[in-house]
Amino acid sequence: MSHFDLCCFACGATHASDMYTLACERCGGPLDVRYAAETTGASGGEPPMPYHDRAAAVTLGEGGTPCVELRAVAGMLGIRRVYGKAEYQNPTGSFKDRGTAAMMSVAAELGVTAVVEDSSGNAGASVAAYAARAGIEAHVFAPADAPAAKLSQIRVFGAHTHLIEGPRQAAEEAAVAYCEARGMVYASHNLSAYFLEGTKTFAYEAARQLADDSPQHLVTPVGNGSLATGPWKGYVELADAGLIKYRPRVHAVQARAVMPVAAAYEGSAWSSADARRTIAGGISVATPPRKAQVLDVLRQSGGEALAVDDGDIARWQRLLAKEEGIYAEPTSAAAFAGLQELVARGVVGAGDCVLVAITGSGLKDTPPA
Amino acid sequence: MSHFDLCCFACGATHASDMYTLACERCGGPLDVRYAAETTGASGGEPPMPYHDRAAAVTLGEGGTPCVELRAVAGMLGIRRVYGKAEYQNPTGSFKDRGTAAMMSVAAELGVTAVVEDSSGNAGASVAAYAARAGIEAHVFAPADAPAAKLSQIRVFGAHTHLIEGPRQAAEEAAVAYCEARGMVYASHNLSAYFLEGTKTFAYEAARQLADDSPQHLVTPVGNGSLATGPWKGYVELADAGLIKYRPRVHAVQARAVMPVAAAYEGSAWSSADARRTIAGGISVATPPRKAQVLDVLRQSGGEALAVDDGDIARWQRLLAKEEGIYAEPTSAAAFAGLQELVARGVVGAGDCVLVAITGSGLKDTPPA
Repeated sequence: MSHFDLCCFACGATHASDMYTLACERCGGPLDVRYAAETTGASGGEPPMPYHDRAAAVTLGEGGTPCVELRAVAGMLGIRRVYGKAEYQNPTGSFKDRGTAAMMSVAAELGVTAVVEDSSGNAGASVAAYAARAGIEAHVFAPADAPAAKLSQIRVFGAHTHLIEGPRQAAEEAAVAYCEARGMVYASHNLSAYFLEGTKTFAYEAARQLADDSPQHLVTPVGNGSLATGPWKGYVELADAGLIKYRPRVHAVQARAVMPVAAAYEGSAWSSADARRTIAGGISVATPPRKAQVLDVLRQSGGEALAVDDGDIARWQRLLAKEEGIYAEPTSAAAFAGLQELVARGVVGAGDCVLVAITGSGLKDTPPA
Repeated sequence: MSHFDLCCFACGATHASDMYTLACERCGGPLDVRYAAETTGASGGEPPMPYHDRAAAVTLGEGGTPCVELRAVAGMLGIRRVYGKAEYQNPTGSFKDRGTAAMMSVAAELGVTAVVEDSSGNAGASVAAYAARAGIEAHVFAPADAPAAKLSQIRVFGAHTHLIEGPRQAAEEAAVAYCEARGMVYASHNLSAYFLEGTKTFAYEAARQLADDSPQHLVTPVGNGSLATGPWKGYVELADAGLIKYRPRVHAVQARAVMPVAAAYEGSAWSSADARRTIAGGISVATPPRKAQVLDVLRQSGGEALAVDDGDIARWQRLLAKEEGIYAEPTSAAAFAGLQELVARGVVGAGDCVLVAITGSGLKDTPPA
């Protein structure tokens, strides 16, 4: 018997844990890992995880990223303290490795031999790397016009890349069809409850690293929202275990070109037909399956959602490099453009401490010249 | 008064510590940091460093890289255990950040406002990033035909790039001339005693991480050799402080196309006129200023030097990606080709534990298609 089941965020229906159930069989809602009462609580400071044998976990040494104090940014914004959690220092250069490590550890434990994923970016490279590490065959579906550098990173790990003509959505549909025809596991970073569970470690680490000056705010770029929902779950576990005094307000930043969460938060009209191109490719997700869950995190934590312009994203990417020596992907820079707006709105105060998730490396997503 | 001076490796002459003295004024030999008796000894497990105020150190969160167990590699080579220290997880994607952090911390403490460096690769990007972080102006001299991706990483941090026609050596000469004409600091990763000092942390971390199974061998790619000499200094400090029982044998791996250290070790004839192109750009150093010092580390530690072919380097780069999920630069892959040869020679035995330095990320140095 397992120490957890999969619980629907929307209707609460429970499902036995496997690698095939990616949405609630009753209502279609997203699933979360829910631990049995005796495993709940992070009392030892170690996050509970949805696999049994930690020694056999699939790992490339993900996590353990530093919280770098950003004095120049704090000075420019007129706030007391800003930390950036350097997620670009993960093995494949993005925070996705946290989620992938947990998801592939479950896959390896269950004896899965092949997985399918759709992504043209960080998640595709991450799944390809961890699958190689676990000796699991990987099929990555990507839009035919995905950047060559990203496709090359996926291929170098030996993953089978399937290039699909048409919009991003077409790659997802092709991946799902491929899985269903072959009875394969769809290792979707958007849907997998295990992936989400892996991103919790962000909160556990940050709570330990910043124990002397716990941030009042976590600002994160949001596409699928796994760096809002995952760390929040971690902070809730830590608070429930009495290991932290308060939880940060979680703020979700989107590109104005693709802003389903920000629009829903503001109550303004927006549909995927309104989506345009953005330089922040990592958060260009028009129909995030966990949108309601992200909004729930904002509500519970007292955070806000907001949208920022590509011009401000590019400006912050340059600023981070020139003033702090950090070469972040545009998606990460969006969080800083959002932080500036939160300061302007008075949501973040002059005396506050802020933690920003710097999600990925600029090396994989070079800024426009 | 400072807690250290700069001591010539060749003749032992001592020099007061500053940022301008890069070679022995008596004999031209390379300089090392030598601590006063009362600061020597790493008894607390923390490396002594050549600056005073640790809280003011220039840092981007370098170091703390994981030692990843490489079971597939160990299996292929028929040895008990292989660990790779994932230096590509440093802030700018290579081990250079350890050295740069120490060197720029000294520069900041001494009030330096501008530095000059010559590099077309990892060191240039690293110096550019840490200079940006410290608010120090950086001038990076690089060959005019350096890869565009590497130059772009240097420029993104706001460093002034000076492109110099001709061979690699021409960029170095131009940098030196530029410094001398302006009285600027030459922050040379090849020569700086502070840079070398920063790379010691590799050994301190590895000793802690692998305390239960200390490696008998450290295998590292060698160009200038800072990952042989720096970590060795750390191991010596740790052994002197009684914190480790034995020091690893340090083995230096070079590309056959540029093999001054391996040739000197073997006693075979080789001059910089023999240098050819290699895919391992990070170790393409025909006249390393610390060559005698690297050879001394091999002698003291009982290690060997050897040269490997580009074909084997490329093969190991692919193997690491496909079998272990690690996308390393060709320079790092050279170390594994060298390890294979050390096993074939019987230098590394079936029961041994080996630590390999995986120096940099493949994202910055994509393999030939």
